[in-house]
Amino acid sequence: MSCTKSMLLLFILMLVAACADKPDTTGDQPIADTGKVYSWKLTTAWPANFPVLQEAPEIFAEKVRIMSNGRLDIRVYAAGELVPAYEVFDAVSLGAIEMGHGASYYWAGKVPAAQFFSTVPFGMTHTSAQAWINYGGGLALWRELYAPFKLVPFPMGTTGIQMGGWFNKRIDSVADIQGLRMRMPGLGGKVLKQAGGNPVLIAGGELYTALERGTIDATEWVGPFHDQRLGLNRAADYYYYPGWHEPSTTLELIINKDKWDSLPADLQTIVEMAVAAISYWSMIVMEHHNMQALQELQQRKNVQILPYPEDVLVKLKQMTRLALEEEANKDTDFKRVYESYENFRTNHQPWRDISERAMMNTE
Amino acid sequence: MSCTKSMLLLFILMLVAACADKPDTTGDQPIADTGKVYSWKLTTAWPANFPVLQEAPEIFAEKVRIMSNGRLDIRVYAAGELVPAYEVFDAVSLGAIEMGHGASYYWAGKVPAAQFFSTVPFGMTHTSAQAWINYGGGLALWRELYAPFKLVPFPMGTTGIQMGGWFNKRIDSVADIQGLRMRMPGLGGKVLKQAGGNPVLIAGGELYTALERGTIDATEWVGPFHDQRLGLNRAADYYYYPGWHEPSTTLELIINKDKWDSLPADLQTIVEMAVAAISYWSMIVMEHHNMQALQELQQRKNVQILPYPEDVLVKLKQMTRLALEEEANKDTDFKRVYESYENFRTNHQPWRDISERAMMNTE
Repeated sequence: MSCTKSMLLLFILMLVAACADKPDTTGDQPIADTGKVYSWKLTTAWPANFPVLQEAPEIFAEKVRIMSNGRLDIRVYAAGELVPAYEVFDAVSLGAIEMGHGASYYWAGKVPAAQFFSTVPFGMTHTSAQAWINYGGGLALWRELYAPFKLVPFPMGTTGIQMGGWFNKRIDSVADIQGLRMRMPGLGGKVLKQAGGNPVLIAGGELYTALERGTIDATEWVGPFHDQRLGLNRAADYYYYPGWHEPSTTLELIINKDKWDSLPADLQTIVEMAVAAISYWSMIVMEHHNMQALQELQQRKNVQILPYPEDVLVKLKQMTRLALEEEANKDTDFKRVYESYENFRTNHQPWRDISERAMMNTE
Repeated sequence: MSCTKSMLLLFILMLVAACADKPDTTGDQPIADTGKVYSWKLTTAWPANFPVLQEAPEIFAEKVRIMSNGRLDIRVYAAGELVPAYEVFDAVSLGAIEMGHGASYYWAGKVPAAQFFSTVPFGMTHTSAQAWINYGGGLALWRELYAPFKLVPFPMGTTGIQMGGWFNKRIDSVADIQGLRMRMPGLGGKVLKQAGGNPVLIAGGELYTALERGTIDATEWVGPFHDQRLGLNRAADYYYYPGWHEPSTTLELIINKDKWDSLPADLQTIVEMAVAAISYWSMIVMEHHNMQALQELQQRKNVQILPYPEDVLVKLKQMTRLALEEEANKDTDFKRVYESYENFRTNHQPWRDISERAMMNTE
């Protein structure tokens, strides 16, 4: 038999093909690992180094990289590094960037109903909200509403239960919130306005100065941990609870639909599991950090931690119902999601009463 | 140039070696995927098909298999298929089986202090317990106590907040629990005894018959979802809350230390992330299933859902403190863990009061 260069080349090519195609030794695994590397970007609505909220997508990306042996390599960008905070939705929708992390109420202008997937005033706290999202039809609605934008949303992370905010004067009754200049965005701001307050929009970075100089009378931010980091306890003395306007806000990961569909099933599972693990982490870590920060705040001589007066909460709750009904009348999707949310909450209440509440009453 | 068979063979071998050794294209991945397949076993303390509790390790194994592309292939066995429920700890400790799933209070005979990592009467509910485990020193203690047994424990899953149990008569005061024959294992049983009751040990499979025939007067099991599945609502009419003896029990995954150390870092990360994801899933799914089952139970004409009378709870709580202190005096590890747990709970209470409790009070 004679051997020519072309025969050798053909042989080599066959061998290379055989190598590339070498049979899988791992049994009945459902997915062929093609070895393809997906180099993705994730852009967030949070400032660089913003604790927990920006950490969440960063830890998520790191864990996904390790779990996928580098096959899904996600680089995380803070707000403004690639796109501004409030353009995350559009950037991922257009596919310019594969993934985004933020909160669904940021897109209330585009999808008013999306607010229910983050938080609404006097809404559900974390576990019940997640039960609604995962088992009460919430996620299906969320995905349906984001489908026209080519986005697949996932609940990923939480701020924990928030605080009512910092005030430079005592709030003793509804009279004290008349004309109150308070930083409060979104539905909460709308409710405050209907209760007689004067909601103001101010970015996080300017809150301390605005409160300290008296440009505003009050501000909400997140909870003890984040509020203390921002130094709000040095700008005002009265710290009110509960955070009626944001009872444990759910954060969101959004993925461009075409990009998501392009991932092999094993990488999709890695993403899904990392999303759930990071959610769990953020719930636990916020509980710990807030507990610790509250202890520190309790040591500070100037800080008075006070409950909102009963009549203020009653008024705000009445106004919340009005505000939500007004939105529902303007937008059929809002109405649909509101009904699903309220229906779940009503069904959940009896269990909440005899489980968490009843245990709490024994403490 | 002449071409011989041996030259060709040499060339093929070189090519095969080159293929096998082909440079990694995935950049700065930290771990070399050797392709080695780890075929592991996981044995549980739960009956086959036991919802949620047995599902948890099964979903865990399935997700790990997919994420690792079959490199970590875990086969799950229910109690009794390989080893009995109460021998999971020993089987994994000896390395006969790589992983186990159960609850740490099952090993109270070996490690009395381990009970705190599952649940103790009048203890913390889920989120605060997890904050203690993950950030309050709980996990470090857990791992230290299991180290002599060559076991690495992870919190994986929860039963949710439990119910107080099913009774064939009304409980109107402490007098009604005198001599009460109630199935209640562990510390709860000890507390019941000190309060005048008569705790009985009966396996889950025999509960329905024992209660229905009057062999016992009462039994606790899990919560509405599991209790209804077991048919307890057909054996007794009075369903009491709260589950003072098990306020949201944490389940555990144990891994043989040598086996765990033998895993490459990427597979360890896959396990850790799956553990957290499954924990989150179980918390949410239990909340949903219990809510739904409670609604069904509320429709049943015979079932009366009642709170334990205040004096009974006060008495049981007093006896709990006595029982825990008695255990602490017998075992220094128990004392150490008890102090860590109580210290965290005390520090957590102020945050709990102004977050979850304060929000709940607005409902």
